Amino acid sequence: MKKLLVELGDRSYPIYIGSDLLSQSELFIKHIKSKQVVVVTNETIAPLYLNAVLKNLQGYTVETVILPDGEQFKTLDFVTQIFDKLLASKFSRNATLIALGGGVIGDMGGFAAACYQRGIPFLQIPTTLLAQVDSSVGGKTGVNHPLGKNMIGAFYQPQCVIADADVLDTLDDRQLAAGLAEVIKYGLIRDAEFFEWLENNIGALLARDKQALAYAIEQSCINKAEIVGEDETETGVRATLNLGHTFGHAIETGAGYGKYLHGEAVAIGTCQAADLSRRKGWLNDEDVARIIALFKKAKLPIVPPEQIDSDRFLELMAVDKKNVDGQIRLILLQKIGMATLPVDVDQDLLEMTLKTYGRR
Amino acid sequence: MKKLLVELGDRSYPIYIGSDLLSQSELFIKHIKSKQVVVVTNETIAPLYLNAVLKNLQGYTVETVILPDGEQFKTLDFVTQIFDKLLASKFSRNATLIALGGGVIGDMGGFAAACYQRGIPFLQIPTTLLAQVDSSVGGKTGVNHPLGKNMIGAFYQPQCVIADADVLDTLDDRQLAAGLAEVIKYGLIRDAEFFEWLENNIGALLARDKQALAYAIEQSCINKAEIVGEDETETGVRATLNLGHTFGHAIETGAGYGKYLHGEAVAIGTCQAADLSRRKGWLNDEDVARIIALFKKAKLPIVPPEQIDSDRFLELMAVDKKNVDGQIRLILLQKIGMATLPVDVDQDLLEMTLKTYGRR
Repeated sequence: MKKLLVELGDRSYPIYIGSDLLSQSELFIKHIKSKQVVVVTNETIAPLYLNAVLKNLQGYTVETVILPDGEQFKTLDFVTQIFDKLLASKFSRNATLIALGGGVIGDMGGFAAACYQRGIPFLQIPTTLLAQVDSSVGGKTGVNHPLGKNMIGAFYQPQCVIADADVLDTLDDRQLAAGLAEVIKYGLIRDAEFFEWLENNIGALLARDKQALAYAIEQSCINKAEIVGEDETETGVRATLNLGHTFGHAIETGAGYGKYLHGEAVAIGTCQAADLSRRKGWLNDEDVARIIALFKKAKLPIVPPEQIDSDRFLELMAVDKKNVDGQIRLILLQKIGMATLPVDVDQDLLEMTLKTYGRR
Repeated sequence: MKKLLVELGDRSYPIYIGSDLLSQSELFIKHIKSKQVVVVTNETIAPLYLNAVLKNLQGYTVETVILPDGEQFKTLDFVTQIFDKLLASKFSRNATLIALGGGVIGDMGGFAAACYQRGIPFLQIPTTLLAQVDSSVGGKTGVNHPLGKNMIGAFYQPQCVIADADVLDTLDDRQLAAGLAEVIKYGLIRDAEFFEWLENNIGALLARDKQALAYAIEQSCINKAEIVGEDETETGVRATLNLGHTFGHAIETGAGYGKYLHGEAVAIGTCQAADLSRRKGWLNDEDVARIIALFKKAKLPIVPPEQIDSDRFLELMAVDKKNVDGQIRLILLQKIGMATLPVDVDQDLLEMTLKTYGRR
């Protein structure tokens, strides 16, 4: 087992990465300071891993909330189901919430923990590659609004993250690929060496080679923990983690939540960001070709949906957390391994990308 | 104008107290760092003071959200109306929210600000005595749940509080009295001298004597700012501000939100807490009589509603933010001017109070 630390003063916490972690009761018990525990999970994960988690919680008063699976259920209404359960069970402010699932469950469970009685402790147990390498680390929690992705939420840090690589055995290929999109992102924004490693090892990752996956998860978490430790609430460098996300969120919202997996939308959005970075004169044709090729090899989509035309993209992108006074700002690439901070974008270059990249 | 400071490191902020503050544009402009401003208010306050506030915001992009007036509307559904407006207007993360109203608007507006894009700046402009002396200061925000008062929320500090005593001219007598309940609370929990002053000046306060009101508001805010500065997230002394509130919240929830004003329920609850403190051997009969007499003189109710019997009280009190692992804990009085921290309560003494105090 590896243990990384997210360094945030009195909100610091460990990320445990390894095999067979779900059976290690001491990891759980160490981070639960109450008798009352609620486990929040979804209909896909519950039959697979809920019992394994509950085994660690003998002697506690345990409730479970099982939500439907999918981005389209990441709403205030479904978070309310968690509040309902906590209140019906008369759970106190020292109760602990365990979020057992992918990014959607982590975001919703974390947000419920942030808001219940103005904040209760919670544990992240990510069960998808995407959640293990990205969304479970760093304390971004929240839900979607019909007009914008992740628009309602809180910065709220967990007590720990338990990333058990074994659970990826049950992940379907599409979910695995979606996770790789965020892995590739770390290479692109700040780690050219890791990007090269990914180019050379993408086959092993898709074949679920344990060693390759463990390395990718660890490198991703190291990068994420460093960035979050520097900038918890995204006033600076943390925004670089949003490479491709403004395009990506527009795709998720525009296509209807749940149509694209988050990682799929980010893959397409990152290709668009690469195209725009080339138009800005930062990337060259070869860089862009390498980026697109790697997403393609990772079995990820690289072309935006036809139904979202340039005007619709602009409308959707006008709602984004990086915008200032309504002006669209994007993370772009200076080169492979180096992202910009949010930049105001020339409207005509952006439209050029939206109208031509991946369009027939 | 007086200026007090709530000292919370990089989250410190001023409370402005005085006359004719709503017309002082510079107070607003100083604390607004964006072009986009949304004013959240209610149907009672909008016709009275919205224009005065809007006059200060010329040159800004301003939206308004006017909610219905009353505790029964302090729900996630009505907070969602604020999110809807912010997103429909494509407001960015640097937009500023102004909460113009009493405690309900302050709590909802503050919670919306805490959650929109994971946090936007906001200003508190309290328009009731209760909000000016208590709820607008200290960053407690949130909404009610059918099973418990203020159960969903966040600690989230404003940029400033602007308490214009002139707006109390339009406050009805019932609302004024409700505010006095929280004023009396400060005397009871930590300021015996102020309690005596209140005994001697309650008539002047009810007659809306400007000087007396100004003094009461200032003393209350000084007490509140000190406590919050010591313990922002209620891990210790801040809980003393909850004197009478566990009983009070049970009354509000049990009678149906909106039947009792918050201050009215707190007045009754504080009398119950005083009765229980006597049973614990801390207060004597004379202390309890003084406390009840002051609430009575302040035109506040002092008797719990018949419909909520002892068992129902216990059930409602089982959901409270001070509870630990489901055990009821209460703030009681050691003497007038000194509250306890949360104490586990002997069930039989509590039942005695619930069954006898104020019951026929």
